[in-house]
Amino acid sequence: MPAMSTPSLRDLSLFELERHDAFVERHIGPNDAEVAHMLGVIGQDSLEAMTGAIVPRSIKPAEGPGLDLPGSLTEVEALARIRAIADRNDVFRSFIGQGYYGTHTPNVILRNILENPAWYTAYTPYQAEISQGRMEALVNFQQMCADLTGMDISNASLLDEATAAAEAMTLARRSSKSKSNVFYVADDVHPQTLEVVRTRADGLGIALHVGPAADAGGVEGFGVLLQYPNTFGHVADLAAVAEAVHARGAVVAVATDLLALTLLRPPGEWGADIVVGNTQRFGVPFGFGGPHAAFMACRDAFKRSMPGRLIGVSVDAEGKPAYRLTLQTREQHIRREKATSNICTAQVLLAVMASMYAVYHGPEGLARIARRVHRYAAILAAALRQAGVTVAGDFFDTLHVTGVDAATVHTYASHQRINLRKIDAGSVGISLDETVTRADLAALAQIFGADLGAADIEALDAATGDALPAALVRTSGFLTHPVFNTHHSEHELLRYMRALADKDLAMDRTMIPLGSCTMKLNATAEMIPVTWPEFANVHPLAPATQTRGYQELIDSLEAMLVEITGYDAVSFQPNSGAQGEYAGLLAIRAYHASRGEGHRDICLIPESAHGTNPASAQLVGMKVVVTRCDASGNVDIDDIRVQAEKHSANLAAIMMTYPSTHGVFEEDVVGICEIIHAHGGQVYTDGANLNALVGLARPGKWGSDVSHLNLHKTFCIPHGGGGPGVGPCAVKAHLAPFLPRGYSASSLPPQAGEGARRADGGNPHAVGMVSAATHGSASILPISWMYIAMMGGTGLRKATQVALLNANYIARRLAPHYRTLYTGRNGLVAHECILDLRPLEKATGVTAEDVAKRLIDFGFHAPTLSFPVAGTLMVEPTESESLHELDRFIDAMIQIRDEIRAIEDGRLDREDNPLKHAPHTATMAAASEWTHAYPRELAVFPLATLRQQKYWPPVARVDNVHGDKNVFCACIPVDAWKEQADA
Amino acid sequence: MPAMSTPSLRDLSLFELERHDAFVERHIGPNDAEVAHMLGVIGQDSLEAMTGAIVPRSIKPAEGPGLDLPGSLTEVEALARIRAIADRNDVFRSFIGQGYYGTHTPNVILRNILENPAWYTAYTPYQAEISQGRMEALVNFQQMCADLTGMDISNASLLDEATAAAEAMTLARRSSKSKSNVFYVADDVHPQTLEVVRTRADGLGIALHVGPAADAGGVEGFGVLLQYPNTFGHVADLAAVAEAVHARGAVVAVATDLLALTLLRPPGEWGADIVVGNTQRFGVPFGFGGPHAAFMACRDAFKRSMPGRLIGVSVDAEGKPAYRLTLQTREQHIRREKATSNICTAQVLLAVMASMYAVYHGPEGLARIARRVHRYAAILAAALRQAGVTVAGDFFDTLHVTGVDAATVHTYASHQRINLRKIDAGSVGISLDETVTRADLAALAQIFGADLGAADIEALDAATGDALPAALVRTSGFLTHPVFNTHHSEHELLRYMRALADKDLAMDRTMIPLGSCTMKLNATAEMIPVTWPEFANVHPLAPATQTRGYQELIDSLEAMLVEITGYDAVSFQPNSGAQGEYAGLLAIRAYHASRGEGHRDICLIPESAHGTNPASAQLVGMKVVVTRCDASGNVDIDDIRVQAEKHSANLAAIMMTYPSTHGVFEEDVVGICEIIHAHGGQVYTDGANLNALVGLARPGKWGSDVSHLNLHKTFCIPHGGGGPGVGPCAVKAHLAPFLPRGYSASSLPPQAGEGARRADGGNPHAVGMVSAATHGSASILPISWMYIAMMGGTGLRKATQVALLNANYIARRLAPHYRTLYTGRNGLVAHECILDLRPLEKATGVTAEDVAKRLIDFGFHAPTLSFPVAGTLMVEPTESESLHELDRFIDAMIQIRDEIRAIEDGRLDREDNPLKHAPHTATMAAASEWTHAYPRELAVFPLATLRQQKYWPPVARVDNVHGDKNVFCACIPVDAWKEQADA
Repeated sequence: MPAMSTPSLRDLSLFELERHDAFVERHIGPNDAEVAHMLGVIGQDSLEAMTGAIVPRSIKPAEGPGLDLPGSLTEVEALARIRAIADRNDVFRSFIGQGYYGTHTPNVILRNILENPAWYTAYTPYQAEISQGRMEALVNFQQMCADLTGMDISNASLLDEATAAAEAMTLARRSSKSKSNVFYVADDVHPQTLEVVRTRADGLGIALHVGPAADAGGVEGFGVLLQYPNTFGHVADLAAVAEAVHARGAVVAVATDLLALTLLRPPGEWGADIVVGNTQRFGVPFGFGGPHAAFMACRDAFKRSMPGRLIGVSVDAEGKPAYRLTLQTREQHIRREKATSNICTAQVLLAVMASMYAVYHGPEGLARIARRVHRYAAILAAALRQAGVTVAGDFFDTLHVTGVDAATVHTYASHQRINLRKIDAGSVGISLDETVTRADLAALAQIFGADLGAADIEALDAATGDALPAALVRTSGFLTHPVFNTHHSEHELLRYMRALADKDLAMDRTMIPLGSCTMKLNATAEMIPVTWPEFANVHPLAPATQTRGYQELIDSLEAMLVEITGYDAVSFQPNSGAQGEYAGLLAIRAYHASRGEGHRDICLIPESAHGTNPASAQLVGMKVVVTRCDASGNVDIDDIRVQAEKHSANLAAIMMTYPSTHGVFEEDVVGICEIIHAHGGQVYTDGANLNALVGLARPGKWGSDVSHLNLHKTFCIPHGGGGPGVGPCAVKAHLAPFLPRGYSASSLPPQAGEGARRADGGNPHAVGMVSAATHGSASILPISWMYIAMMGGTGLRKATQVALLNANYIARRLAPHYRTLYTGRNGLVAHECILDLRPLEKATGVTAEDVAKRLIDFGFHAPTLSFPVAGTLMVEPTESESLHELDRFIDAMIQIRDEIRAIEDGRLDREDNPLKHAPHTATMAAASEWTHAYPRELAVFPLATLRQQKYWPPVARVDNVHGDKNVFCACIPVDAWKEQADA
Repeated sequence: MPAMSTPSLRDLSLFELERHDAFVERHIGPNDAEVAHMLGVIGQDSLEAMTGAIVPRSIKPAEGPGLDLPGSLTEVEALARIRAIADRNDVFRSFIGQGYYGTHTPNVILRNILENPAWYTAYTPYQAEISQGRMEALVNFQQMCADLTGMDISNASLLDEATAAAEAMTLARRSSKSKSNVFYVADDVHPQTLEVVRTRADGLGIALHVGPAADAGGVEGFGVLLQYPNTFGHVADLAAVAEAVHARGAVVAVATDLLALTLLRPPGEWGADIVVGNTQRFGVPFGFGGPHAAFMACRDAFKRSMPGRLIGVSVDAEGKPAYRLTLQTREQHIRREKATSNICTAQVLLAVMASMYAVYHGPEGLARIARRVHRYAAILAAALRQAGVTVAGDFFDTLHVTGVDAATVHTYASHQRINLRKIDAGSVGISLDETVTRADLAALAQIFGADLGAADIEALDAATGDALPAALVRTSGFLTHPVFNTHHSEHELLRYMRALADKDLAMDRTMIPLGSCTMKLNATAEMIPVTWPEFANVHPLAPATQTRGYQELIDSLEAMLVEITGYDAVSFQPNSGAQGEYAGLLAIRAYHASRGEGHRDICLIPESAHGTNPASAQLVGMKVVVTRCDASGNVDIDDIRVQAEKHSANLAAIMMTYPSTHGVFEEDVVGICEIIHAHGGQVYTDGANLNALVGLARPGKWGSDVSHLNLHKTFCIPHGGGGPGVGPCAVKAHLAPFLPRGYSASSLPPQAGEGARRADGGNPHAVGMVSAATHGSASILPISWMYIAMMGGTGLRKATQVALLNANYIARRLAPHYRTLYTGRNGLVAHECILDLRPLEKATGVTAEDVAKRLIDFGFHAPTLSFPVAGTLMVEPTESESLHELDRFIDAMIQIRDEIRAIEDGRLDREDNPLKHAPHTATMAAASEWTHAYPRELAVFPLATLRQQKYWPPVARVDNVHGDKNVFCACIPVDAWKEQADA
């Protein structure tokens, strides 16, 4: 280091001094000196020269590379700017309900889960050995949902209640004995649930019948969807209905509310086959609609068909219990051409929060909360009735008030800064929740002209019975597993959460070089606004006058993304990448239909595509035609030409990923767009690899018509251990009218006809809702806004270039040791590189999985394993990784290569070597008996630096076969729980 | 678990349902069933019966046990209440300076240090092996301070700059060759520094001379205190002064500003022997005055006399470098009867933040910030001069504006929501800092009638040179160690902080059963308000009209503590427990003097007292007379009677701890108070053990006159790894006039005489300031307020009872294995128990330290070691620890006893056993060669549960002797740094 008062520093301009703390330098790993060094290693003179050598000239926009975005803001400036935006939201007390309820996030969970990078920077638990902590939390979630619903098994979260209901419909179709094409939906489900189910049914050609719940048993169909309590709060006994449905061989799906089920007889006890719901009110704020964790629980017989992620218990190489994803349904496992779901993402971070809420409160605590909510509702109902207001009976927490002048009621309410549910001109809804106080009750009563002082409340409490039907009072126990009954003091919960976090490897400890997943820095400044009350506490159906901040945020972020992508409009409704794909394909379909070309249904998909692509195409009723790739991994443009010509009359679209899933900027993308357009098709570009394009090229400018953007990849929303994802759909202008409709409370009564529904929102072309909330997971959009605002156009471009540099640096440094499978022009890769381990496996028996597991011994999360090519590792370092971290990874990979070489040379045994037995636990390493043919130090300290800092995996290699053969997805040990359930 | 809808739950009243989430149940570890079980173990029928059996009847207040406090609030209610209080603070932009400057806390540090329990719940690093992470951060702090000041060595923080200056004075006296009793203080030091130094000099009988800095060389004295830049911002060359001081054999102490020293020739290069300062502006908010970390750096020759904590590098049992506290000066090490300092606490959490700020920005980043601040100051000065305003020359960041109508200026400023420094009727001060923007410059200029647009700023920048004297421009390097030059990206810093945190054991992973230190839950809800801008961003000298929230908070907390303690008034100025003692004794001294009994100077102190007690007595000029304890560890009331009679004419006070440091409620405390009062003395009760009294008895009611309260023990302020502490001083009404004076900006020019100073604040009796800020560490008072508000009177009482129960449960469960040294009536202890290991050492050679280190292998922080009795462990579990955690600790202690028994029986070797070699690291356990006579599993997995969850110490046992012999207190490795320094 030179002395600091060098002339260079003293000569800095005021502007340079003011820019000292530019966020871009905090976000991008290597500093300028390191960039120069790395460019030298890959033989390039500058970032610009490197970019020119990698990115085809054909896709570079004619108007030059600069992004017309505001200059980069410092963290302080950006936080001040978004603070002003947040302040434009006006947070009323919302008693709207309709699937979203006020809740108190326990502070210890807020700080130590939602605001803790150990949890929010974790990845999906595909690598079981380094994910035991969050998988335990997810098993708790599964147990919680199964217990409360009375079902055999639950998955580990779905995107929202409405999409969960749509998934329930398709699961019912897969599982029903009926050959009918009819699905019956009760007209008292939440309107947004009906909307999303209708959209999904459309795409899949399912006939939707909507009618009274009581009539469901009389309809021929493969399944029914009921809601309990219903959207108006009514609690009805549906056992007879379920019985009638079963008698016809159809499946009963029930949407429900977990808090209500602490007091109500659960659906599993009166005939439900599938139960879905939201866990939002278990400690997860409104967030203007999301993200929250929904769930699906079902009977054991359905488990192998259940969509979404499922955590199971298997054993590890030492014979100890170990968690793993079981019956995996991630994109690589989706049956590409027969998919009925395209679900990849879950809502892990929110599911963890909800499960910890249950751990914190325990069964008795939850029941007390529920009883308090119910008693308040009963007292309020009594007060209103005393004042002459008509209130429906048999409810848990929601009052259906009829015979009023609703407009006047809402006006009075808004004077009190209160939101009630808008139902129709003569009725309103009032949903109570755990945040309700006696003061709230008094304010609510006053809206209806009733006076409710403290003494009145006591008197009414004494005089008023419960409003739950006696036959539907819950008598069975739940959450009896010890985990729900031991961590009720804050210290115990804090330590439990820390112990789980410590089992896992997340980005706060190591790079996660997952190809295609873009695990980059999730900066603290980006995370801070998310938990501000002005963003967190807004109900998704709050009036627009209260959500001006959100509107400004969304408009601003849309403008940013339009500039970055070259598209013209963005919908933020899709709450995962796959949802974004789905929305994009729906728009294409609707566009064709609007031109009288509704017959176009062929979707070309290169064989290198993500498995999600064909699944999404299936979901909108398209037929998938797979096109070939050449030996270099590039799409075969000739085959595309042939197929496009062959299917010209019916060509709907092509779906392609760019740069390709093989990590290459293919030269022909513009030509492909021209071919597709010439045959009347539309071009869908998967946004998974957008991190290689930002600031360099814009798909909307080179001929693509639509993309989804993974905000949780390119735009810094953290992966959260496997969700939330956010997948906005960006389109060119001609597709903009076909983006999903928003939800409008005033005009969407569930019984409204198709015409009325289409007319809503002033957009006759809009496709149906794809997610439950108009703007999807709105409350985490500040993360991406902050990132773009702090990086600015120049910073974003540099980030992309350094992402390319980092990938090429790794590829070049590892070239003497591993073959890189695909490269583009000049022998360079894009933002990721595929290391081919197949020759090594052939020679030594060491598999790519062995290498992935061995990396754990070095403290690394493995790269993407065997995707897109079996027997390979795909490495994407991203721009946030420093040279130091890259070198640490390279050192590990070289050491591993040396170990493989030792096997080749016979210095290590083919079977008994550190790769085959990786990862090594502390209990293995510290056992008196050491039976391996290699020394302990090689097992656990293969590099000297590991002696300074070492991650110890909590389990040895997890047995996948045992896990899939013995599917068990509840808390361990379970004897006590089982006895309870049998009792 | 019973089914949830049991009649009992359904029969709960509305009130009970509303109280479901009472904080008291989250704070207290054992639930009611567990309490009943534990009462059974100790043979008591109820908490009340147990309390009666432990607490002497004599101290129970006549009016009954109930605390007259508001009922307990839920977390939500309490946060809403304190939110309203916070909103009463009106946060202006403050350019007041005077030792406090605006700063941006990097968000990644805010979230991952200040708001992270892994850092804030840690304890002082006495147990080196489990404290390597925070000690590395503190070594970085030391290196930072030494580098920037140009000194050889720095300590690891002091309480504030003013007390650091007072410590510099006493260090100078210890170190000077001069026999003079005179200390010379330049009249341009910060007023609060002079105030605190004056208070300290009074107590120690040092003659303080105050005059111009330039005259310091001409005064006979043992030392001088200078300030550079001075309090008005002026930067003067003081080298000649320093030379003249040295020529007379006196010591040069300099107060300084670290940010300025990135540009200025450091004091170490122009003659300073001691340098003190504050690191607040390195990322620590104003906080209305604290807490912040001050420091002291000095020449190598002074290091063994330096006060405060010092982290050094030693080696561990494996020969690897390891950090430890060196040359320890904690209370147990204070020379009880010859003390010149009573410092125990440091400001570790804040020092860690400041050091991480330097790690994050690095030398060049800091220099850039400094240059920007300086350029802005130069530009503003130029703009003001153009407008005809007189501005003094030669400054870094602070403008001294003279010849103005100050009242008008301040009025104009307040219209712009700006605070300037009040100096006198014709001059004001303006201090700039890193938060200043061009908009701020324009607003500041406008106050003085100058127009400063963007173009003007550019023009003035070009036309205006630096205002630093050329001879004082820094040319030497600093922060050249790699740690300050590698973690500049957010990911790197995040991972560095996580890696350090993971090395340490804090309360988020385990109980810390330290006797006398009361390591209880620091609940998240208590921590949340601390980082609200309305508390964090208030300058300590902001006008009272802007600090109404703080006033309300402080008044409210004072009322709570008055009710709890039975005293009548509380001063929050003392920012550590020792400071509180000091303030209390000052009040006693001033009280006697006010009655014409200034000769009273005898302080009785039982031999069982904390070492701090005699040290504090020395500091106020009292003579310590030690009184005996009897064989049961109780104070000997007869000896007290004898000594009180003997010293009756001169008796000033008795200092005692209650319950005693031996963990016993002595029966005679009321009688002792009567004896002391009969002889004209005052009773000082050390508040260290107040956690055993809250809600049960009140010292102010049984005869005590004054106590300090450790808010960081009893009232939930976290220990922060060794600070901040908060030690308010509580007194009976007759002492209230003698509490420390507050600082008033308008009436304390440093040149004012004693009379004028005494008159300030309307209280002629107030003693001088003991800390730099009127309300000490005000910004963390919300923690204690929240705790008391959420517990309520009933909850606090129950907490105390469960603390007693937990201690007695441990004592009883361990009774078959370890002897408890002292018990009170009925064989019960108070809130802690002392386990006597001396018989075991005699039999087996196993020491208390061996047991302490062995506990690390079980994942526990050791209890207090060899205090108050050598060869013992003092265990205080506190009420927050659950039965599960207590049992885990008991299991470990029993297993350890079994190992000791194995040595006794010859089954384990006397030398080569797991106790002697504890703690065992992973590198030891996983080494191929295992040379010990006991198996690896016994070493690292002595209990089966450890296989599920294991803390691995990063180093083996640290060598204390090597460390004290080879004092090295800078970053390792240091070769590069040394060469740099030598160059």
